[in-house]
Amino acid sequence: MTISMSSASLPIFKTMLGNLRNILDKAAAHAQARRFDPGNLTQYRLAPDMLPFTRQILIACDTARLGVSRISGVDTPRFEDDESTFDQLKARIDKTLEWLDSVPSDKLDGTEDKEITFPVGRESTRTMKGQAYLTHWLLPNFFFHVTTAYAILRHNGVELGKADYLGSR
Amino acid sequence: MTISMSSASLPIFKTMLGNLRNILDKAAAHAQARRFDPGNLTQYRLAPDMLPFTRQILIACDTARLGVSRISGVDTPRFEDDESTFDQLKARIDKTLEWLDSVPSDKLDGTEDKEITFPVGRESTRTMKGQAYLTHWLLPNFFFHVTTAYAILRHNGVELGKADYLGSR
Repeated sequence: MTISMSSASLPIFKTMLGNLRNILDKAAAHAQARRFDPGNLTQYRLAPDMLPFTRQILIACDTARLGVSRISGVDTPRFEDDESTFDQLKARIDKTLEWLDSVPSDKLDGTEDKEITFPVGRESTRTMKGQAYLTHWLLPNFFFHVTTAYAILRHNGVELGKADYLGSR
Repeated sequence: MTISMSSASLPIFKTMLGNLRNILDKAAAHAQARRFDPGNLTQYRLAPDMLPFTRQILIACDTARLGVSRISGVDTPRFEDDESTFDQLKARIDKTLEWLDSVPSDKLDGTEDKEITFPVGRESTRTMKGQAYLTHWLLPNFFFHVTTAYAILRHNGVELGKADYLGSR
């Protein structure tokens, strides 16, 4: 077995999003047990000029989904980004996982040198080859937002450990 | 060009560690400009039961170095883990980058199915095949510690942005 574009992307995104879903359950249970407004967690930012928890989750989901769409050429719908509760965020992860499950591996394989053009900020685009796009753009961005979401919860006392982040495989 | 074990590991670790080195420079400059003890940053934890900044850097370095050593079979020295200042942490990154530069790509290539046994905690080991070890263990752990280091600095007001994390390629 050698590394393919599909095996270097889909299982990682799916595993980590599944872990993130379980982490959301623990965060929601923590808010309920302590009887505070769950919005205190979902709207929390580690710095005033960083994105809140909700956006970390949405961006993690869309980094995986839009990235896989661009690499594979498989269209993906536009979502509204109006999630605010833990249940809505879990549903967003579910929709993302469902879409990822629908993408045939062979649409991703062989795209190492395919030129991928993607938006950077609001007014510019960037073009990278498939493998570089996956390993130097998608994966660093994806893990950034998953880890930042985890850090926000840990900073606020949610009982999580590395095993929740890595999941059990 | 197809994805190889070396191209899916070495350039990612090297790029991100280089970015992390630049981030350390900005953090040190921030402490100096504000005239506070740099130890206030290097010893900072996002939660009392999380590891401090220094350990995030050391573990990021060693995840890359020990992981590449295990996959490639190339020996790597034991380091003392006695770094505490920004300069010492930068030197640790430099030593790590220097060692990574010394590993021939072909020692990593073809190891997708090689069985890798590695310590988990103090009293157990785990065995995974090369590709799974890289993509489901090393990369998630590596990005976790780099991002947590970044989050600690952002939380403490160091002026950093996503471009510092991703670097310019």
